[in-house]
This record gives sequence, structure tokens and C-alpha cells, in this order.
Amino acid sequence: MTEQDAPTLALARELISRRSVTPDDAGCQPLLTERLEPLGFLAERYRYGDVDNLWLRRGEGQPLFVFAGHTDVVPPGPEDQWQTPPFEPTDRDGYLYGRGAADMKGSVAAFVCAVERFVAANPDHQGSIALLLTSDEEGPAQDGTKRVVEALTEKGIQPDWCLVGEPSSTNQVGDTIKNGRRGSLSATLTIKGTQGHVAYPQFADNPVHRAAPALTDLVNTEWDTGNTYFPPTSFQITNLRAGEGANNVVPGSVEVAFNFRYSTETSADALKERVALLLERHRLDYDIEWHLSGTPFLTDEGNLIDAATEVIRDRVGISPHLSTAGGTSDGRFIAPTGAQVVELGPVNATIHKVNECVKTEDLEALSGIYEGILEKLLG
Amino acid sequence: MTEQDAPTLALARELISRRSVTPDDAGCQPLLTERLEPLGFLAERYRYGDVDNLWLRRGEGQPLFVFAGHTDVVPPGPEDQWQTPPFEPTDRDGYLYGRGAADMKGSVAAFVCAVERFVAANPDHQGSIALLLTSDEEGPAQDGTKRVVEALTEKGIQPDWCLVGEPSSTNQVGDTIKNGRRGSLSATLTIKGTQGHVAYPQFADNPVHRAAPALTDLVNTEWDTGNTYFPPTSFQITNLRAGEGANNVVPGSVEVAFNFRYSTETSADALKERVALLLERHRLDYDIEWHLSGTPFLTDEGNLIDAATEVIRDRVGISPHLSTAGGTSDGRFIAPTGAQVVELGPVNATIHKVNECVKTEDLEALSGIYEGILEKLLG
Repeated sequence: MTEQDAPTLALARELISRRSVTPDDAGCQPLLTERLEPLGFLAERYRYGDVDNLWLRRGEGQPLFVFAGHTDVVPPGPEDQWQTPPFEPTDRDGYLYGRGAADMKGSVAAFVCAVERFVAANPDHQGSIALLLTSDEEGPAQDGTKRVVEALTEKGIQPDWCLVGEPSSTNQVGDTIKNGRRGSLSATLTIKGTQGHVAYPQFADNPVHRAAPALTDLVNTEWDTGNTYFPPTSFQITNLRAGEGANNVVPGSVEVAFNFRYSTETSADALKERVALLLERHRLDYDIEWHLSGTPFLTDEGNLIDAATEVIRDRVGISPHLSTAGGTSDGRFIAPTGAQVVELGPVNATIHKVNECVKTEDLEALSGIYEGILEKLLG
Repeated sequence: MTEQDAPTLALARELISRRSVTPDDAGCQPLLTERLEPLGFLAERYRYGDVDNLWLRRGEGQPLFVFAGHTDVVPPGPEDQWQTPPFEPTDRDGYLYGRGAADMKGSVAAFVCAVERFVAANPDHQGSIALLLTSDEEGPAQDGTKRVVEALTEKGIQPDWCLVGEPSSTNQVGDTIKNGRRGSLSATLTIKGTQGHVAYPQFADNPVHRAAPALTDLVNTEWDTGNTYFPPTSFQITNLRAGEGANNVVPGSVEVAFNFRYSTETSADALKERVALLLERHRLDYDIEWHLSGTPFLTDEGNLIDAATEVIRDRVGISPHLSTAGGTSDGRFIAPTGAQVVELGPVNATIHKVNECVKTEDLEALSGIYEGILEKLLG
């Protein structure tokens, strides 16, 4: 295939060959800027700490359609387990191999090629088109999309639709659209007792003994039953620590870390309050530190979902499934602007693994879906 | 005071000045050998690994009375918190300060001085008198009294009475005789689940969630109600570990360490079986490793307790309390020989702490009690 036959593949290869391990952009964003500036896109760079962010926009009016994504990738892991080097894009047996092939340099390439075709065919399209790119999605995600959205909001920029190119598909490109994500709320709970010698339990107050019934109660609690779009809120204990290793000492405290993945049927504040009530019911002496890493969001209907669904039906011949499952994504930072947000990208079977790959034909198919959505909304 | 006025104090000072941090004897046992050989004691040294053990015996016949004790001490801890250096015996305000003053160089000195007076007054006493000393009571206790008793048993040596000089007293010397000890049984329990990402709880099986109700059940179990001599068997969780620190990973297993201090109303085998039944009732996938560090023992009556009680009543004017509370001691290794075993020594308020001390006048009083017991049993 030539570059003209497979422009998305060609650009994906160029991006994969740049070793952009989070938070290093490694020249990916300048490459995209060079590509889109000639088409009338204005570039604004937002550099925060060691993170590169890029806002490329064509047009000034509403509605504003945004493609959101990231140029950073997770580390390659053990390179000797890769069949071909992770930063040498390799076509083999109908797949493109390389770190970021599926998450999400393929999608970024598909954005760009879709925009190129769309602008060529619709030089005077409605509203405006933008790309929001960061090199900090796979890392702490504090200096990336989150801060760019804050800066854009300050400038009065208000997206109407946002398509995040995260690998949402399960078996076939387009089979799944993520139309929301659960919230993620973590806590570190320290339950206090009185240290002592095991031979004198009457002088000690074992915090593990106090904690066990409370943890049982937390584990058995039904937090909600979910709804049409969300599975029930899930509670998981992730870490436990008590004692220093000696077998004759009653520990003075126990540390319990846990995480909620929660639906729109509840809220972080409601969960915090229910946990506090439960701990107080067990008469525990405790400290708790909460960390909210993402509030849940949901785009339950609207012309973005309609457009994506119709285009997939027309071009792929399947009806996409709407899902809110899985981990957090940068969609959580964009949704609070009020925009309709969906995630739609390639098959995610190999992401974050060795020998990450994407079906070569899916790259052009994905770019075609993106182009089709632009046509429906701004054509 | 001169050495003649206070011989126990003088010998205790000599022993404390030897820095015998476990398992180093630091010359204590040779000093005692020199002191007692001229009185007709035969010395046998048992060196196991880096541990010094000494068996000193006068006479060959039965009944055999044994004073048992240790010359090692626990480390001094932060030396700058000692008012005077831990290995410089110091008399201050009626107390003798130094590491080992109460646990148990004072008692060892009291044994020796009691024997000296008793032998001087009763050169042809009945039966025989022995001292069993080790430098491994405060350490792992594997190469100390345990092995010497094995060696003596092989030689057909059978003690009738054994007085262990551990600091048994609470407020006043002689107020408490330990006439037994609880058993100590430890376990490391690993409960297995399936590791996974917290965002996909349906693919994980959280072992902490499975463990919590079982631990609650273990904590709430009444193992027995104790008896006249023993408090109820006590169960204490000493260590808990799950997770590697990440807050987005469901751990694959949880490790729980616990310890039983158990009475003569149950046994190690019975406890193991009850724990196994409970874990199976909770349908857990688990491994468990048991460690039995001491079986319980009890000397509930006999002429050793009678003699000790009468002597304390006569010389101190109080009735000693019989108790089995507290941690393990080397008595656990001697009791299985069938000997009557009691622990009787100074006040234990400062043992294993900085500024360990013993009331100076208690040293001679204790030696007098020991001498009185010898007179009642072998005089």
C-alpha cells in the first residue's frame, strides 16, 4: 500500500516511531501542527510542567466539534518480549504493531486524515473543528487535558461535541461506544487501637479485630443497583497493612485502602457520608483521607451519539453498544463543560501489553467513521 | 554495704557488668562455675551453636532440685535514655540499676548465694541440687534450655522440682508465683483470590473481601472459658498484608498472621482443627503454616508450691498469688519432664525497658526465700 492508499496507516507509523513515553511528546504534536496549519487550523500550545498540550482549531463559530486524544504512551515493558521493537512500527499479517498502535496513535492519525478529507470536501463547513491533544493521559493526568479545559473555559470556549479516540471497541471497530464513565473515589482509612504484647491482650486493643466486622459490612453493602447505563457501584479493598512482622505484638493501627467505581445513581459526597456513618456505627477510632480522581459522566442521548451510531451502522454494518464500563479517561475532564462526550476508537485487546497492535484495515475504517460523523454534524 | 552484708547484690553487680546481650554469655557462666565448684558442684558445659549452657550439680541422688535461669539479657535499647549506663551496675535510691538487674541476673545471684548458705549449713543435704543456665532465653530459645533438657533426659536425669528465677512478682517480691504458662501457637494464613483491575471487578476475586467475614468469625469465637488457673484462650491477629500500594489493583492474596495464647482446656491440635473448619465453612482457598512455640503447662499442687508459699508467708508476711498469666518462659521446656515447675523472682515492672532496676533489699530477700525453699525440701 502507498501513503495515498493508506494515509492513516502512514501517519500512525510516523507517530509510533516517536518514542513518546508519558509525559514525553517526542515531537508528535509539532508533526500534527505542521500537517493541519496549512488547512487553516490555528495552533495554541499549552506547556504545563513537563507536559505538552496542543489545541488546534479551524473556524471560530459554534457548534464546536472536538477530537480529543493523547500522544503519550505507556512504557513498553520488557522489550525482549516484543516480536519487533515497540518503537519500530511493523506491518505483519494484517496488523500494525508498535507501542501506541491502539492506544492511541492510530486514533490520532485517524482524526487528522478524517479532518483533511472533510475540510477538502467542505472548506466552508459549519461551526468549527478542534483537536485537543496532551502528552499526559497515561501519567498523573494533572497537567494535561484537565488544565487545558480549565484554560479554554476561562477564554469562554465551549465545546458542543467531543469525540475521545480511546480504544473503546471490543471485538470489531465500532462495536462499542463509551458514552460515559464511572466515577473513581479512593480512600486511605486508618483504624486505631492500642498496641501491646499478645500475652497481655487485656492491655491492648486490637485494631484489626475492630476493623474486621466493619470491613465485612463495607463489603456486603449494596451502594446502588446501577441504572440503564451504569453497573452497580463497586467497592474494592486494594491494600491492607497492620503489624511490623513480629508475631508477639498486637498492632497499634491498621491501614485499609479502598476504591469506589461509582455510578450516576450516587455521588462522592453521598459515598463519603455512608462510609462515615458505617464506621461510626462500628464505634471506630479512625482517620480517613479521600481522593476523588474522577466524577462520573454520562452522555445518554443527543446528536453526537445519533451521528456516531448511524455512521457505524452505514459504514460497518453493525449497531454499536453503548457502555460506561472500564477505567477512567480524559472524558471526565471534558464532560463537566456540558459538551456531549463519547469515546470511540479501535479494538482494545492489546493495549498496555507487549506486542500492542491494531488491525491495519481498521485504521482507515476508523478514519472513515470519524469523517462520516463530521459530515453529519458540520457538513 | 559490704559484700558480706549483701552478697547477692555484689554478685548481681558482677554479672550486670558483663555485657551478655543474647546469645552472648560474656563470661557469666564461668564466674558461677568458679564460685560453686569449690562447694562440690560438678560443672557440665553444653555449647550449641553460639549459645552457652551450663549444668552445675551437687550430689547424685533424688530428689533433684533445679534452679533454672538465663545469663543473657535483651539489648539495652537507646542507651542515651538510661540515667546511668546499662552495663555499669549502679545503686541509687535503694535500687540497683542495669540491664538484667530484674531479668534475671538478680535471681541468678540469689540462687548462688542461697545455695552457698544452704550447703554451708547442710553439707550432707538430701538428694541433689542443680543449676541449669543458658545464654539463649531472650533469643530464639532453640539452643538453650530446650536442648539441655533433651540431653539430660537422654542421660536419665529427672528433676523433681524446678524453680525458674523469672521475675514473677508484680508489686512486692513474692506476691506472685507463676505455676504454669499458657501455650503459644502462631500461624501465617494466606487467603487466595484473583488479582485484577478495580475497574473490572467482575474479572477479579478480592481475597480481602473473602477474608473479612472469616476474620470477623475468628475474632468472635470463644475458644474456651479458661479454668481455675488459666484465663480463656486468647486469639490475636498480629499482621495483615494485602496489595502492593496501587489503588487500582485488586490484590491476588491476603496474608494474615495470628497467635493463640491457649489454656490447658484446649490443645494445639484442637485449635488447628477448629480454625480449619471455620476457614472451610467460609469456603476459602487458603494455605496455612503453623508454628507451635510452647505447649501450656501447669503445676497445680505439690510440695514445691507448698514450700514456696510457706516460706514467703513466713519471711515476707504475704500469701503469694498463683498465676499463669504473661508470656512464655523456659519453664515450658522443663515441665514436660514431669517435674513440678514454678517461676518465682523479683518484681517485673522494669524488665525489657530502659532503666531496668530491682529494689536492692529484694535481692537478699529473694535469696532468703530460695534458701528457705531448699531447707524445706532438701534440709
